[in-house]
Amino acid sequence: MSKFQVGDSKTIEVQITDAMVRDFAKLTGDFNPIHLDDAFAATTRFKRRIAHGMIAAGLISRAIATELPGAGAVYLGQTLKFTAPVFIDEVITIELKVKAIREEKNILTLDTICRRKSDGSTVLEGEATVLAPRN
Amino acid sequence: MSKFQVGDSKTIEVQITDAMVRDFAKLTGDFNPIHLDDAFAATTRFKRRIAHGMIAAGLISRAIATELPGAGAVYLGQTLKFTAPVFIDEVITIELKVKAIREEKNILTLDTICRRKSDGSTVLEGEATVLAPRN
Repeated sequence: MSKFQVGDSKTIEVQITDAMVRDFAKLTGDFNPIHLDDAFAATTRFKRRIAHGMIAAGLISRAIATELPGAGAVYLGQTLKFTAPVFIDEVITIELKVKAIREEKNILTLDTICRRKSDGSTVLEGEATVLAPRN
Repeated sequence: MSKFQVGDSKTIEVQITDAMVRDFAKLTGDFNPIHLDDAFAATTRFKRRIAHGMIAAGLISRAIATELPGAGAVYLGQTLKFTAPVFIDEVITIELKVKAIREEKNILTLDTICRRKSDGSTVLEGEATVLAPRN
């Protein structure tokens, strides 16, 4: 039997800083000016710089590795729908909730939702598929 | 009319280094030992450390921002299926290919595939949805 149950959930809370955006750009080479250039960003629908969506996705990966199911988890898949921008210095919550368990393979399906802490509005929604560690 | 056509494609090539894995761990807080701890990783099905899957996802984000459709692109969604591990120092290719265009909204659907350069085997497959810049 899996040590997890449908409905189990965990939430972490992280502030998305300018340093994270700049570090992510350096690490990946994603220098999209929408994330880094104030003058360019002012011309966009968002009027100011937004964080890379994949930073929030990286935080889902962290929550999986540290909270649910935890260390040793193997990431099999993720869907991501970026429903609203995250601006610099916003605090977001990353919520994981077990939606389904394939007992024979120890594979969990998790609902993964990121929200602005300030007003609870959704910025990212999707689903993760994860191989849970056996012990 | 969109300046893009179904079938347009771009490929970038990136080596996934140990420094990238450690920087990604620091940036996101994803310290899953499967990525960072040789002794732990030796006990897993992979026998050695693997890169965070979301690093490859970040490289898809880079290819979207820099190649197709390019600067100013707004990421709307992504599906990710991690089909095989990426080991430290492997070179992967990230291929984007326009699969569909919603002309009225200037929204592109892209096939996104990451492969090992050494043998062409797939490590990540999925689909991106992107709002292309207007000019």
